[in-house]
Amino acid sequence: MSVIGVSSQVTSAGNPAFNSQPNGVPSSTSSAPIGMTPELEQTLALLSSHRSVLGYMLLSRGHPVSIIRHSGGVFDGEHGKKYAGVVARIVETVQAGLEEINGGENEGDDVKFLRIRTKRHELMISPDGRYLLAVLHEPS
Amino acid sequence: MSVIGVSSQVTSAGNPAFNSQPNGVPSSTSSAPIGMTPELEQTLALLSSHRSVLGYMLLSRGHPVSIIRHSGGVFDGEHGKKYAGVVARIVETVQAGLEEINGGENEGDDVKFLRIRTKRHELMISPDGRYLLAVLHEPS
Repeated sequence: MSVIGVSSQVTSAGNPAFNSQPNGVPSSTSSAPIGMTPELEQTLALLSSHRSVLGYMLLSRGHPVSIIRHSGGVFDGEHGKKYAGVVARIVETVQAGLEEINGGENEGDDVKFLRIRTKRHELMISPDGRYLLAVLHEPS
Repeated sequence: MSVIGVSSQVTSAGNPAFNSQPNGVPSSTSSAPIGMTPELEQTLALLSSHRSVLGYMLLSRGHPVSIIRHSGGVFDGEHGKKYAGVVARIVETVQAGLEEINGGENEGDDVKFLRIRTKRHELMISPDGRYLLAVLHEPS
């Protein structure tokens, strides 16, 4: 089961990123440009409430990738855009690598989850058909 | 601490890959072209003894990447070479991404460990300054 339980439509990929709403449940007014399932809302709220989580980004796949929603200062502004591009590129490289390895045999293989431990942080990426969820956290 | 505890020198990057010796401790005759630390030997033997482990590859970083040693049919021959290239490319993409994100600030960040869960397998990559250890296993 995917971590991203998005089943609704993104009506416009060019929507500006939401401001972060770390622990609140966003209102369901018509100003919300995408339909978020309650499961996704819950997952994102839960993520943000973890003290070790520095932030998350929900991205819409495409060229260029767009930030649908984010939380955490680390993903603000230009830095966030850079991060989004890097996350998208990593997922593409891994997926292209799998395709090369499987060489069209059978039905191929798909990336389900990526965990990147760096000297400072841990970046977790959960790809979906049309979305990417990236979470940055600080391991203790 | 790195999973790869290689401290000795690779005397020639062009050495042919070793045949796999899944559970045995390789002889220490002069025919062994690289110096393997006992810790690395132990780690590789332990890895191979796990039933869920389909194989490992110890790679020497460089262009092109070369297979120092491998185990498991999945990493044999051309398929193994393809895998090695893909593993190296993934690590390079992640490392380049980190450099882009950190933009030369401070001392930068480094990839320590990568875990890629796919529909079928899990690929774990542990990069070192000059080596890469890749392990493919089948989660139950």
